[in-house]
Amino acid sequence: MKKIGIIGGGQLARMMILAGTPLGLSFVVLDPSADACAMKLCDNIVAKYDDLDALKALSAQVDIITFDFENVPAGTLEQLDAIIYPPICALATAQDRILEKSLFQGLNIPTPAFAAIESLDDLEAAFVRIGFPAILKTRCLGYDGKGQARITDAKEGPAAFAALGGKGLILEECIDFTFEVSMIAARNQNGETVYYPLIKNKHQQGVLHLAEAPFQDDALFNEAKVYMNALLNKLDYIGVLTIEFFVKDAQLIVNEIAPRVHNSGHLTIEAAITSQFENHLRAILNWPLGATKMLKPAAMLNFIGEMPEETPYLSINDSHYHDYGKEPRIGRKVGHCTILADDLDALALKTPIFFKV
Amino acid sequence: MKKIGIIGGGQLARMMILAGTPLGLSFVVLDPSADACAMKLCDNIVAKYDDLDALKALSAQVDIITFDFENVPAGTLEQLDAIIYPPICALATAQDRILEKSLFQGLNIPTPAFAAIESLDDLEAAFVRIGFPAILKTRCLGYDGKGQARITDAKEGPAAFAALGGKGLILEECIDFTFEVSMIAARNQNGETVYYPLIKNKHQQGVLHLAEAPFQDDALFNEAKVYMNALLNKLDYIGVLTIEFFVKDAQLIVNEIAPRVHNSGHLTIEAAITSQFENHLRAILNWPLGATKMLKPAAMLNFIGEMPEETPYLSINDSHYHDYGKEPRIGRKVGHCTILADDLDALALKTPIFFKV
Repeated sequence: MKKIGIIGGGQLARMMILAGTPLGLSFVVLDPSADACAMKLCDNIVAKYDDLDALKALSAQVDIITFDFENVPAGTLEQLDAIIYPPICALATAQDRILEKSLFQGLNIPTPAFAAIESLDDLEAAFVRIGFPAILKTRCLGYDGKGQARITDAKEGPAAFAALGGKGLILEECIDFTFEVSMIAARNQNGETVYYPLIKNKHQQGVLHLAEAPFQDDALFNEAKVYMNALLNKLDYIGVLTIEFFVKDAQLIVNEIAPRVHNSGHLTIEAAITSQFENHLRAILNWPLGATKMLKPAAMLNFIGEMPEETPYLSINDSHYHDYGKEPRIGRKVGHCTILADDLDALALKTPIFFKV
Repeated sequence: MKKIGIIGGGQLARMMILAGTPLGLSFVVLDPSADACAMKLCDNIVAKYDDLDALKALSAQVDIITFDFENVPAGTLEQLDAIIYPPICALATAQDRILEKSLFQGLNIPTPAFAAIESLDDLEAAFVRIGFPAILKTRCLGYDGKGQARITDAKEGPAAFAALGGKGLILEECIDFTFEVSMIAARNQNGETVYYPLIKNKHQQGVLHLAEAPFQDDALFNEAKVYMNALLNKLDYIGVLTIEFFVKDAQLIVNEIAPRVHNSGHLTIEAAITSQFENHLRAILNWPLGATKMLKPAAMLNFIGEMPEETPYLSINDSHYHDYGKEPRIGRKVGHCTILADDLDALALKTPIFFKV
């Protein structure tokens, strides 16, 4: 029986364990928080992500190490004598917005204009080249809209620069997109690759709020697949990789990648033949991958901050209510609900409750 | 957050926990075996099923007690100050084949002719009334074909009678059925009731081998529903109830009931909108029940004794491979595989591997 170590014990780890247990896998989670929501379901190690001794203890217990969280220091991981998937280079790239966007550029994948910012002089020069509005972000450790400031005028530059720490920053062109989509794919060591349909995403305050799939546009799907293949090949990628795109003028512009299962793919649990979580595990085990076809169109609503009363959600036909068992906290993802329908129109009729939250 | 106690920690408990964790439920399992396969996923109590102190400790920790195993002494359960679903009377009935068949008779539900056997005189009289072949079984604690003997001639009676313990027996008419089907339904305290489509079952050596659904026959479905409603009402039932039927001459004859989720319903995990496990939990919590519609036709093959190599099963399109993490043992259910197809013909084409095991 194979044992998988997961660095990070949040809801992504939890859903991975729920998908992997039926496959006969067992799990050990490493997380700095003793009450991380995946921990009740498996053995665990409470330690910081850069605690080398704890990571060695994890690797001694398991066959493969994977992640539910990509901001684990790559340098620390490189010191482990362990099989680690996705590859460390993919994590290192996703951890640093400059490396990430440079990778896209090198592969001729459209991405917003950007500049590395280490000084106010860099920032002024970048304003001239990129224009306004622009977004100043930390290169590393930003997620869900944290660690960033929107700038509409050069005068706002110095304050934003100081607020974000004054170094290790990136200025990005602000794309006036129509909407966002994500593509999730899985690849195993044999090179077998499967792609989920495009998922259309809506955000609120930088946090994913609503995801709907399939987003049916063959041209965009094929374009996304080309970019996905370029990235998978370049990174010698094993596991699930997610790309987030802006859609502008019927073109894809890559926002960022996540070297892991992704919030927008939660609807694959019930709406696809094989969930992203199962396919991530199959991929890192070099098992045959599962079908990514959707059984039904689906929409997923995130519950942010606290869980709603369950009855209205359980009462929707063909709904799936998920409570991660987390303590309420402002801005925290604590659960989600996925609903299925026979077609996209029926889905739209079923989802009004999703817009009242 | 609700906490559910499960008496019995086998694969049914395991699948219940996998279905209930996303709903935000937590679990405590009580089982005599410290390595019962559900135990890794939750808190647990290692104790015999008739250990009153252990059962009291369980009930002190949880909101509701339920079962993955029906042969828990009803008298012991009655001493607990706990919410127990399904109701103890349903367990007591299902534990004793005489009580069970008498219940069917009282509700005018067709069932094989039977007689309680406490002596060789009883047996001889029963042979005259029931004829041959007939099956001599223990009234209690039999399952998966254990504790029974097929008798084709009166001369075999005394040996079978002695081998089965010489008391607490039942002689049953042996039905020459064409095939077997099961119906699984769930009912909550509000009386809301949902029914899964009929499932067609094949057994080998008394153990379920293959299940296929939906078995589409409106007349039989409606007949099964009438019997199901009669039983649910009579037993004031809460939770999932399964009825196993023989089908002979296009008529249903009830074989037995299981006051719990059922092996034939494993295919509901991936092939129905809501699994039997989730609906059992929703029912005992008096939550709205989930849709029982099937997303696709499906077939499930049990793995008995030991797990096969996984790759051939993972390689089947739209397959779901389940390994319960149990030690191999002759006759033991250790896993299953469910495959989905667009229609019943496609399913038949996909399943040849199921018949080679």
